[in-house]
Amino acid sequence: MAKVAILGFGTVGSGVAEVLRENAAGIAHNAAEEITLKYIVDIRDFPESTYGSAHIKDFSVVEQDPEVTIVVETIGGVGVAYNFTKRALLAGKSVVTSNKELVAAHGLELLAIAKEMNVNYLFEASVGGGIPIIRPITQCLAANELDEVYGILNGTTNYILTSMVKDGAAFEDALKEAQRRGYAEQDPSADIEGKDATRKICILADLCFGKNVEPDGVFTRGIGTVTADDVEYARRLGCKIKLLGRAVRLPEGRALVYVAPHLIHKTSLLSNVDGVMNGIVVRGNAIGEAMFYGAGAGKLPTASAVTADIIDAAKHRKARKYLGWEASEPGYAVSPESVPMSWYVRTDSSLTAVGAAFPKVRLVSFPGEYPGAGPDHYAFVTEKASLAELRSRLDSLNILSLFPVLD
Amino acid sequence: MAKVAILGFGTVGSGVAEVLRENAAGIAHNAAEEITLKYIVDIRDFPESTYGSAHIKDFSVVEQDPEVTIVVETIGGVGVAYNFTKRALLAGKSVVTSNKELVAAHGLELLAIAKEMNVNYLFEASVGGGIPIIRPITQCLAANELDEVYGILNGTTNYILTSMVKDGAAFEDALKEAQRRGYAEQDPSADIEGKDATRKICILADLCFGKNVEPDGVFTRGIGTVTADDVEYARRLGCKIKLLGRAVRLPEGRALVYVAPHLIHKTSLLSNVDGVMNGIVVRGNAIGEAMFYGAGAGKLPTASAVTADIIDAAKHRKARKYLGWEASEPGYAVSPESVPMSWYVRTDSSLTAVGAAFPKVRLVSFPGEYPGAGPDHYAFVTEKASLAELRSRLDSLNILSLFPVLD
Repeated sequence: MAKVAILGFGTVGSGVAEVLRENAAGIAHNAAEEITLKYIVDIRDFPESTYGSAHIKDFSVVEQDPEVTIVVETIGGVGVAYNFTKRALLAGKSVVTSNKELVAAHGLELLAIAKEMNVNYLFEASVGGGIPIIRPITQCLAANELDEVYGILNGTTNYILTSMVKDGAAFEDALKEAQRRGYAEQDPSADIEGKDATRKICILADLCFGKNVEPDGVFTRGIGTVTADDVEYARRLGCKIKLLGRAVRLPEGRALVYVAPHLIHKTSLLSNVDGVMNGIVVRGNAIGEAMFYGAGAGKLPTASAVTADIIDAAKHRKARKYLGWEASEPGYAVSPESVPMSWYVRTDSSLTAVGAAFPKVRLVSFPGEYPGAGPDHYAFVTEKASLAELRSRLDSLNILSLFPVLD
Repeated sequence: MAKVAILGFGTVGSGVAEVLRENAAGIAHNAAEEITLKYIVDIRDFPESTYGSAHIKDFSVVEQDPEVTIVVETIGGVGVAYNFTKRALLAGKSVVTSNKELVAAHGLELLAIAKEMNVNYLFEASVGGGIPIIRPITQCLAANELDEVYGILNGTTNYILTSMVKDGAAFEDALKEAQRRGYAEQDPSADIEGKDATRKICILADLCFGKNVEPDGVFTRGIGTVTADDVEYARRLGCKIKLLGRAVRLPEGRALVYVAPHLIHKTSLLSNVDGVMNGIVVRGNAIGEAMFYGAGAGKLPTASAVTADIIDAAKHRKARKYLGWEASEPGYAVSPESVPMSWYVRTDSSLTAVGAAFPKVRLVSFPGEYPGAGPDHYAFVTEKASLAELRSRLDSLNILSLFPVLD
């Protein structure tokens, strides 16, 4: 029998408790032993909770209880969560988490401690919510040299962009609707500004390429600058706008890692990943492209991924999973600044200025707000070039929007 | 160091040898030990082969060599492959395979032998080629009660149907083109008639619901009866036609398992899985729906999945994977005959007859070959009902096509 402690009784933590209870028989069958919840650690009181005496407030009880072999960290953030995770690992317990911020920022160190202690630090739920992605990358695609990973990693922004495309909503209205439906936080900045997607693409890049990427240094553009005009221009270019995290293996042992709204062609499967759903594409030298799709957030989907890790931790109590990556040298992760790609440009500079800067592109325009007034801005897609190479020509224009185009 | 023998040096077998050689360093890193190819067993001569003395013709050499701990069976079929697999397992070696026919027909027995011998029988490549699907189902979704699994499981038929939809090709022409491009065998009957998809949906149902489904008894309809008219009617109904294998958990411990061309709505992600690609949807009580997409066949994608299993077998030499299912009682797997679903019907019976049999449906028609001649057949979608319930009304019409509609 494996005994589990859950740290943090919020949405995900209570979901894990629920899944462990509801699907107990199937979980015991899959783990080949019973898995029981012994403690729920949270400083808050839960008078309505049905878990009774499992509720405690002091983490050190868990830390000192040798019966507990698996600790579930669903506190979030990099404060208490970091402290408790480290202590749990050092106490010889496996830790399972959905905390992408912690894994992205301190995964390298925590995995090293787990290795040292011969226990597991597992985080399937940290990327793609319930979508199986960490395990497929590290196990199912283990025979591949992985060259690229990218995807729609944040459900909130995808919901907003989908509303803008489908209903022609303005960004602010789409955001309000997302908040009303509970798909966006009251302070939605981590999602909107792309930080959440950055944490996730860092974890994916860490695993796919084997070297650590610091989220702090990653080129990150959110969706706050995407306008209804951009959505319409994208449509006329046969594309949709999606916020993508992307990591590409580069020559000379470097990697491109960034987050930005992209134009992606309507015929691609990823362009049809709508609403709060996530989709992640992995490209390897043997498999070609594979895509993983599902609910990227939500109580039960995330709890499903956490619980799969609990089962795995129970099955591998004395056989550590080979999960991990190495430290990277400075300059390992580079931004789109120095890597050739195509860019979508929207500008209200004069046709003459646009023609002088980009003589060969096909301009797309549509009439402005006032009938007969003619277009008041233009959009086009550049040839494949690094931002550094394009800089002087872009600087000659008044740029309204600038997003990469996915090949 | 783990030593491997490959049985059968055809497309997949030679692909596995290639992946083991090309990605040796990454594979050794992921397996935490070197994995070397010791034997290739095939009765044929390969004078051009670069694997030299690894080539042998006598399986008993492998069987009696204690150094070989992992046997890769890529022979195919249920004759020699069955015999060798059994002998390898009984000799205490783990077996890894891409042979869906063997797994579907004898997986129950072979997994029982593997369990008895404390070795592994792994078959990630048997469904969805390179797409990670077996491991995600058995591990990542282990915390879910899985209720349904369905998908485009055969690349050949999907290529043909895609050509019919995109280029308006007739079935025969699309098949010829698929053969010309190497996507269809010279004898394509196992693909066209749906047998290949049936083997795969049986394996998926075995794993998802935990009980054995015999492929022989499964309701199987291929794509030979899909016409260009059906494709056009489907389009007018907002749908595409795709060959799906489908398994649904039913009340009272039974399961619906079948293969048939389906109408699926154009807004579904699966309807955009085109060409030779495969897509598999899994529905669980915690995760909701997840989809797995990628190359369902081909030398390197399939070899990628086989090699992932080799790595797993190496890592679990003394810790058997919990993979398996139970025998089922007679009547466990049922056909669409007795389960309510909606059906697409195409008929050339008179409007009066159609109206008498199905008074409430919306008829779709398009003009016949001769201008002004009016429609010479009609299509409609029935209410949700079992075929048994619809039988008498369908019998009153001359039915040209009859396919289920995916909800």
